[in-house]
Amino acid sequence: MTNPSELQAIVDAAHRAGAAECGKGRVASYIPALAEADPAQFGLAVRTVDGAAAEAGDVGRTFTFQSVSKVFALCHALAAHGAGVFDGMSVEPSGDAFHSIVRLEEEQGRPRNPYINAGAIMVSGLLPGETPDEKAGGLQAFLSGICDGEAFPVDEAVYRSESATGYRNRALANFMKHYGRIEDPRRAVETYFRQCSITLTARRLARLGLFLANRGVDPVTGDRIVAEGANRTVVALMAMCGLYDEVGRFAVNVGVPAKSGVSGAILAVVPGRMSIAAFGPALGPKGNSIAGMTALTHLSEGLGLSLWG
Amino acid sequence: MTNPSELQAIVDAAHRAGAAECGKGRVASYIPALAEADPAQFGLAVRTVDGAAAEAGDVGRTFTFQSVSKVFALCHALAAHGAGVFDGMSVEPSGDAFHSIVRLEEEQGRPRNPYINAGAIMVSGLLPGETPDEKAGGLQAFLSGICDGEAFPVDEAVYRSESATGYRNRALANFMKHYGRIEDPRRAVETYFRQCSITLTARRLARLGLFLANRGVDPVTGDRIVAEGANRTVVALMAMCGLYDEVGRFAVNVGVPAKSGVSGAILAVVPGRMSIAAFGPALGPKGNSIAGMTALTHLSEGLGLSLWG
Amino acid sequence: MTNPSELQAIVDAAHRAGAAECGKGRVASYIPALAEADPAQFGLAVRTVDGAAAEAGDVGRTFTFQSVSKVFALCHALAAHGAGVFDGMSVEPSGDAFHSIVRLEEEQGRPRNPYINAGAIMVSGLLPGETPDEKAGGLQAFLSGICDGEAFPVDEAVYRSESATGYRNRALANFMKHYGRIEDPRRAVETYFRQCSITLTARRLARLGLFLANRGVDPVTGDRIVAEGANRTVVALMAMCGLYDEVGRFAVNVGVPAKSGVSGAILAVVPGRMSIAAFGPALGPKGNSIAGMTALTHLSEGLGLSLWG
Amino acid sequence: MTNPSELQAIVDAAHRAGAAECGKGRVASYIPALAEADPAQFGLAVRTVDGAAAEAGDVGRTFTFQSVSKVFALCHALAAHGAGVFDGMSVEPSGDAFHSIVRLEEEQGRPRNPYINAGAIMVSGLLPGETPDEKAGGLQAFLSGICDGEAFPVDEAVYRSESATGYRNRALANFMKHYGRIEDPRRAVETYFRQCSITLTARRLARLGLFLANRGVDPVTGDRIVAEGANRTVVALMAMCGLYDEVGRFAVNVGVPAKSGVSGAILAVVPGRMSIAAFGPALGPKGNSIAGMTALTHLSEGLGLSLWG
Repeated sequence: MTNPSELQAIVDAAHRAGAAECGKGRVASYIPALAEADPAQFGLAVRTVDGAAAEAGDVGRTFTFQSVSKVFALCHALAAHGAGVFDGMSVEPSGDAFHSIVRLEEEQGRPRNPYINAGAIMVSGLLPGETPDEKAGGLQAFLSGICDGEAFPVDEAVYRSESATGYRNRALANFMKHYGRIEDPRRAVETYFRQCSITLTARRLARLGLFLANRGVDPVTGDRIVAEGANRTVVALMAMCGLYDEVGRFAVNVGVPAKSGVSGAILAVVPGRMSIAAFGPALGPKGNSIAGMTALTHLSEGLGLSLWG
Repeated sequence: MTNPSELQAIVDAAHRAGAAECGKGRVASYIPALAEADPAQFGLAVRTVDGAAAEAGDVGRTFTFQSVSKVFALCHALAAHGAGVFDGMSVEPSGDAFHSIVRLEEEQGRPRNPYINAGAIMVSGLLPGETPDEKAGGLQAFLSGICDGEAFPVDEAVYRSESATGYRNRALANFMKHYGRIEDPRRAVETYFRQCSITLTARRLARLGLFLANRGVDPVTGDRIVAEGANRTVVALMAMCGLYDEVGRFAVNVGVPAKSGVSGAILAVVPGRMSIAAFGPALGPKGNSIAGMTALTHLSEGLGLSLWG
Repeated sequence: MTNPSELQAIVDAAHRAGAAECGKGRVASYIPALAEADPAQFGLAVRTVDGAAAEAGDVGRTFTFQSVSKVFALCHALAAHGAGVFDGMSVEPSGDAFHSIVRLEEEQGRPRNPYINAGAIMVSGLLPGETPDEKAGGLQAFLSGICDGEAFPVDEAVYRSESATGYRNRALANFMKHYGRIEDPRRAVETYFRQCSITLTARRLARLGLFLANRGVDPVTGDRIVAEGANRTVVALMAMCGLYDEVGRFAVNVGVPAKSGVSGAILAVVPGRMSIAAFGPALGPKGNSIAGMTALTHLSEGLGLSLWG
Repeated sequence: MTNPSELQAIVDAAHRAGAAECGKGRVASYIPALAEADPAQFGLAVRTVDGAAAEAGDVGRTFTFQSVSKVFALCHALAAHGAGVFDGMSVEPSGDAFHSIVRLEEEQGRPRNPYINAGAIMVSGLLPGETPDEKAGGLQAFLSGICDGEAFPVDEAVYRSESATGYRNRALANFMKHYGRIEDPRRAVETYFRQCSITLTARRLARLGLFLANRGVDPVTGDRIVAEGANRTVVALMAMCGLYDEVGRFAVNVGVPAKSGVSGAILAVVPGRMSIAAFGPALGPKGNSIAGMTALTHLSEGLGLSLWG
């Protein structure tokens, strides 16, 4: 059984170590909503499968889902369609964004995995519903269903910014359409922008991710969120492809599956034990929260989380 | 505690499932010694950290180390030099061989990781000793030290074949030299060829890998083989980069760190539990033992090995 | 002075040589209008700057402009905007379509030249006018102005097919928009589709291209079509980038600037001497008219056209 | 007939324009012999096929052949072997050095053309003779034969430097060997280094290149140096691939075939008219002599050299 006060002490120490790094990073700047984030913010939230919780810092601060949404969109699509989601997509790492595009061409529009943008846009297009609103709305309802009925509103201003600037993602969608991999590039990409603009907090992100650490069953409610095999796939791909071109470094230093986003969120999953959410908008050179990476390294050491022994 | 007869039954079943796939693969053909391998061979050997063992099939059949040697060369180099081994090398996945070369150019001769050929050649060049014979000889002694003093001879005919055909590896070594990443391309590459030509069996490979599942300490002798942090790095990189362009598929289907070689060997490591060696020279389309991949998938299900829950 | 009967004899012989190759090629198939072309068609038309003309075969057969339009769109844009057309574009060869995209990413959305699709779409976006109809309409008027007031109608069915399938071009346009290289990706790409769907014949194409062989002045009317320097640029780029990944082979075998299109048209320009138009929809492996390539090689030998001596 | 005094005046003006640019460039620095060159040097030499000559500046200054040697090595190989030289090589532009390597991999060790390093190394390996000394010696004799029996000695210090640093070229040679494209990578690459280290002057380079402007026949002696078709190929490839990643810009601005080298030499060929040699070691951003590029642009305008009209 997790000792709550020990856990809290380790979380506090990890938070302090992370917070001390904030000054070394830079917030994302491609849309105003991200550029205005306070780089000194940092929150860390842990939920264990046996019912413990610990938090430190800005865990109630709202941020947008960005790429962390890809994990839950994949779960929702797998719940809706089963393994058919992977008919047009591989499950291999792809390296950086540039190589992702080169490979998209080489592999005839077939994305390398669901966590690069091309793959995530494909998944967005597969979400149940007809319009981008319905598709993203279904994902929001999926999240509410996991998280005690709480609302996960889209930040419409962020969505409009994403849509107004998202031409690279439109390019990816059109490439995939060229190769017959997706149905409607506009619908897929607008759904993707809406899903990235869903708002949440570190506290809720840890709560949302708990089922991933428990073979697809939410340990609080006992509800099965995704099938066991699907959960394993979702988590395996976090381990292989979850942190952009820093995924190997994270595997060495932290040793657990995780998914990061450009808003500064990281969700880490320790199978059988816990979910961890970090939020710190100051990003390191590879686009991952600098405080989050540091805090997770400390947590891994303090709690013995590395899966490699 | 592992139940030996249960373990044996599961190993037997996995071996049968693997053996049934041999006919679908093809042996490597770039050198005669590999081309002459019998594609119907298949051996599977398991050693647990708590002392159990189980075997099935051709576990006493001799094969050459090939790329599985990269794991042990890295251990030996880390034991000799510490983390300085990574001064000129990243720890990120690289995708397929073609992209490995593209990236080697893009990243100015800095290999993506120690398990692609460029990185492995760099590690070979760092092994203690002056000549290729001495360097490979030191690795052989390192292996003997782990494995009860048994000999790990180089197959000189294989070595000569590797050396006679290894121009792609020479190209990689010369690129790294161009960027000042290695000292002596010829020495590094000949060492690499010798290390790939070391002979062993599946039985011995499982024995050799046991320390990797036990935080760097051989559980049989109690000897520390590599430091705990170094062991974690070696194993993490197996998880991220150990199976060529099939590493993501393996993560999804099996869910444990592993390293494969073109002779048909696969070493899998289940941290805290066991090492598994498979040998089946019939390879699938991505260059991994087709019987080995199948058997490991069965073992993962039968023994609940996946690290993802 | 050109001897008309000698010229006609050489053109006839070249036409025969080309026609004999038609059976070895294949018509483009990505849209129905192209797929339905008769692969046995072949027309060859020559106009000299000193007033001679010779024709053979299907020189009155209608085809769509496709990539040959890029030459005239560039002329029209240069006439409207001057060298500012090249502010966001290079003038270097790019190799095949795949490398064109890789480079578009590497070079931050800056096309390598105006004859690859990305560059041509950028040029289309720069044509005078507000809507795709106006922009393409302006180009049609530009062509009529050169060619004795004759009409150059858009084949609306082809345009609709191009637009219905042109997702790769939309991807390119969106990439360029991502890098701020173009204003409105939709408008640019629809203009491009309309311009590609303009219809003409080999007879008219030879007539249209005559000014290119005469330093930008139409030798029939004496009208200056483009400035001398602009004409030189347009023709130089035909020499360097006009025949996809067969441009070097064409330079060796024929030795004059040319631009080909997927409908099977080729326009060749012999500075100071003549323009040559070939139309044969059966394409060789690199996407160029197989009869056209053969006939041009014969013409080059027969008429001593090679610029290399 | 060329008017000698007019020619001299234009050459003088072009030389002044070029010399004024020297300060903006930087000498190559990868070996000491090049790094020590005086960036203010600049020589310009013209020879016409009808017997005129004009010179300005440092036309008697010794420099090493570097990549300009590729043109003459190709001539010598074509004289020895005929078109078989192109059995393992394409004739297409390749863009920059990075893409050259990517393509070498993509196209299975088949160089894009004989003027990128890989292709040039292949040609060096085909030169008559057994050893690098013999092969380069044969080329030196070939040059002497063209140039009035004058000696073209190898600068042995430069050769040793090239050999001591040429690991990137060794990598290319080993790649080609891997794909079975060349016989002996060491011999080919050492020959290449020797050929690059041959010394000459701008005056002699203009003299050497005169036959290229005269369909393969030296106009001074009347000797045929290469067959007419081979000469056309050599010159066509200069036009398409002679100036690294600035070949399109040169085609637009100058409009004649040329080949440059990192020592600051450029040989330009105006078919039927003249050869032009420039030597100025201060290089622009793409590795071509900055003074040479400027002077050639002026000469093209002053003498109306552009082949595009």
